Amino acid sequence: MQDNLLTPVEASAAASPVPDRAFQDLHVADIVERLNEQDLETAASVLVRLPVERAVEVFDRPELARAGELILELPEELAGRILKGMSADRATDILHQLDGHDHAKLLARVDPETLKSLQLLLAYPEGTAGSIMTTEFVSVPATYTVAQTLEHIREVERTRETVYAIHVLDPATRTLVKVVTLRQLIAGEPQQPIVELGPNREPITVKGDTHREEVARLISIHDLLAVPVLNARRQVLGIVTVDDVIDAIVAESTEDVQKFGGVEGTVEPYLQIGFANMIRKRAGWLCALFIGEMLTASAMQHFEDELAKAVVLTLFIPLIMSSGGNSGSQATSLLIRALALGQLRLRDWWRVAVREIPTGATLGAILGVIGMIRIAAWQKLGIFDYGPHWRMIALTVGAGLVGIVTFGSLAGSMLPFALKRLGFDPASASAPFVATLVDVTGLVIYFSVALLLLRGTLL
Amino acid sequence: MQDNLLTPVEASAAASPVPDRAFQDLHVADIVERLNEQDLETAASVLVRLPVERAVEVFDRPELARAGELILELPEELAGRILKGMSADRATDILHQLDGHDHAKLLARVDPETLKSLQLLLAYPEGTAGSIMTTEFVSVPATYTVAQTLEHIREVERTRETVYAIHVLDPATRTLVKVVTLRQLIAGEPQQPIVELGPNREPITVKGDTHREEVARLISIHDLLAVPVLNARRQVLGIVTVDDVIDAIVAESTEDVQKFGGVEGTVEPYLQIGFANMIRKRAGWLCALFIGEMLTASAMQHFEDELAKAVVLTLFIPLIMSSGGNSGSQATSLLIRALALGQLRLRDWWRVAVREIPTGATLGAILGVIGMIRIAAWQKLGIFDYGPHWRMIALTVGAGLVGIVTFGSLAGSMLPFALKRLGFDPASASAPFVATLVDVTGLVIYFSVALLLLRGTLL
Repeated sequence: MQDNLLTPVEASAAASPVPDRAFQDLHVADIVERLNEQDLETAASVLVRLPVERAVEVFDRPELARAGELILELPEELAGRILKGMSADRATDILHQLDGHDHAKLLARVDPETLKSLQLLLAYPEGTAGSIMTTEFVSVPATYTVAQTLEHIREVERTRETVYAIHVLDPATRTLVKVVTLRQLIAGEPQQPIVELGPNREPITVKGDTHREEVARLISIHDLLAVPVLNARRQVLGIVTVDDVIDAIVAESTEDVQKFGGVEGTVEPYLQIGFANMIRKRAGWLCALFIGEMLTASAMQHFEDELAKAVVLTLFIPLIMSSGGNSGSQATSLLIRALALGQLRLRDWWRVAVREIPTGATLGAILGVIGMIRIAAWQKLGIFDYGPHWRMIALTVGAGLVGIVTFGSLAGSMLPFALKRLGFDPASASAPFVATLVDVTGLVIYFSVALLLLRGTLL
Repeated sequence: MQDNLLTPVEASAAASPVPDRAFQDLHVADIVERLNEQDLETAASVLVRLPVERAVEVFDRPELARAGELILELPEELAGRILKGMSADRATDILHQLDGHDHAKLLARVDPETLKSLQLLLAYPEGTAGSIMTTEFVSVPATYTVAQTLEHIREVERTRETVYAIHVLDPATRTLVKVVTLRQLIAGEPQQPIVELGPNREPITVKGDTHREEVARLISIHDLLAVPVLNARRQVLGIVTVDDVIDAIVAESTEDVQKFGGVEGTVEPYLQIGFANMIRKRAGWLCALFIGEMLTASAMQHFEDELAKAVVLTLFIPLIMSSGGNSGSQATSLLIRALALGQLRLRDWWRVAVREIPTGATLGAILGVIGMIRIAAWQKLGIFDYGPHWRMIALTVGAGLVGIVTFGSLAGSMLPFALKRLGFDPASASAPFVATLVDVTGLVIYFSVALLLLRGTLL
């Protein structure tokens, strides 16, 4: 451990009330948590006094909030050493968080070698395998024996993010021959050639532009500890490790829940999203939905005469509309996950439609019966008088619910397929979007049923 | 490889059109995918003809659908061998899927030793660390050297789910002293005592009843490959591996999206949920929401006189109500994730409320201005005549939106806190539930604003 690095304590830091010793004995995750609770300056002064190795571990944690701002607060030389020590994928992450000016300022602090590996990763868009891969992996030529490989791992162990996957390369072309796990390696005989270990299946690999969700799926279904990222000539550019994938899965599911709620996806901690940013993330969708929902006002205007004649019909509009939206949101949530988990493909849309129509009709009938009982009960118990035609009104509400809930289930289940067909992420289908889609049609269905059943009596 | 096990081909299987050879050269995940597409009998006949080791690997994959039904289809002796070969945690999973009768039938097929380890896991409720842990882990006494430990790992490697975490136990009490990684082990000197390796921090551990979500969080933030499950005497009962955790995280996020959509959480693939089951999963919440939403009818009945006098007010009811629901659903989705990721604690509710009120008011004002422009435009362009008081109606809609969107954001953000406070999972807050909550209040706000602004003119 480099305990001598504790000495360059800054004058301002010396006055800080945070006990240094307490920080050093903590797990990295706990240090991160405490730093997140402090203001930027205090957190920076704590980091300055940690051994560089510990500071690197702290910056390597994706849970560290304001990592970009924090590293800018550190003395230049220290910032450069931390960036060099960090895993390249996480350093890229931090650079992605900064704007152009700070980005350049930070890159100016690193040595040429680190700069080169960072620039390789920065070339890939966020959310791809290339952007989350690490270039610090273990590789040996296919001519090595088990003993030679073990010796090599011992030498490089400290500088590699993971040593559990060993990439066996063709000595001439440097293309990937196979991936041997550390487990297979230690089970092998010292003089055995490394290429003889493990099964002879084609290794699971990805490309730099593979989406992180697909990388996560491959690692998860094949129970891998890392997956190599290959270029077009099948040379290893880097690897994505299981840790990175867990972080990616957690980030994806945060985005999915937020998108489903109708918010632009964000991984920033809630309390750290600025006011203007928060408005921006929410106002866009809210306005779009509001403008879409304006069609309900147009639909209502269209039925203005009927509304004036039978105000009693308006009493059930919120009830009926929301039931359509709710059933749609249920169907959408089921289908988003089924598509994300690969349980369904695009061509299965027809099988889903054939299931959703009877499901929706049954659910609508259940709600319809409850609705009719409610109207009859209020009428009979004298709680409210729906007029002489109350039986027909109850029937209108019941039949309307069957139609609207069926339509809601169908529309809600088809929306993720439609988005996927158009090349969007099916998870962009949000509950508010489904509700808006169903609301307008729901009103038209309700008034059409009313016109059909009540013509000659109320209308 | 036990290739001789290919010979006992059943008569019925011999006639099957599935090419055996093709299956053997595939990755396990691909075999699983193909089996999932076949009917139960064909899938079983394929499994019978695979080497037992491969069949075990297939059953070890959580992606294998109908695993319980499939294993019941196999000859008794083979089923027993597969259950013995499988990781205990996955076998428990399969047993959890079966009803009491089949459960007992399957347990009767296993040897006493396997039975004992399965019964240990079966005692833990689903969703806990105990239910997903494996009892096949590597442990050595604290007196071992690096060389002895490596030798031990080579011997037991085939029968352990993971060898990447080595559990160092007190030789007398068998309590956990520390966890050494395989990486640290191979970096060590052969004659070095194992207890000297790795940092001397308290190892991260869980208890049998720790929720899988918490286990996932610990593995993820500490970048572990496995976490030990301890009993009250700090002895190791089993370990939860990173693979199991990825599966748990994926299952959790499926449940979270479904719950947010208002469906009872399910991990069954969509097309395999029976019709009756599908209705059951959706009807419960849909009926509960419907009954809650009936309060909107009561609210409307309360304002019946106003409605009759000013039918024009009803035109904007769906628009206004849905905006409240949408802003609520946005806030809920943000807060659910912030709480799940530990970015916020229960005591932070006040800080959130203080942020949501101005956010909601601003968003409401934006929508209000759009709404007022829409009314003015339609009036001026002669598309629709809102009557002589259209200016006041526009103002009512605008002011109503500010009130309702503010209330929606506040209610939507407080709901996850309220659920957590009451001991429920904050992720049980669904978009439909928030919408229903906001709809009733939204109507009351709208009509109250109308009464205030339109009294003496329209009302």
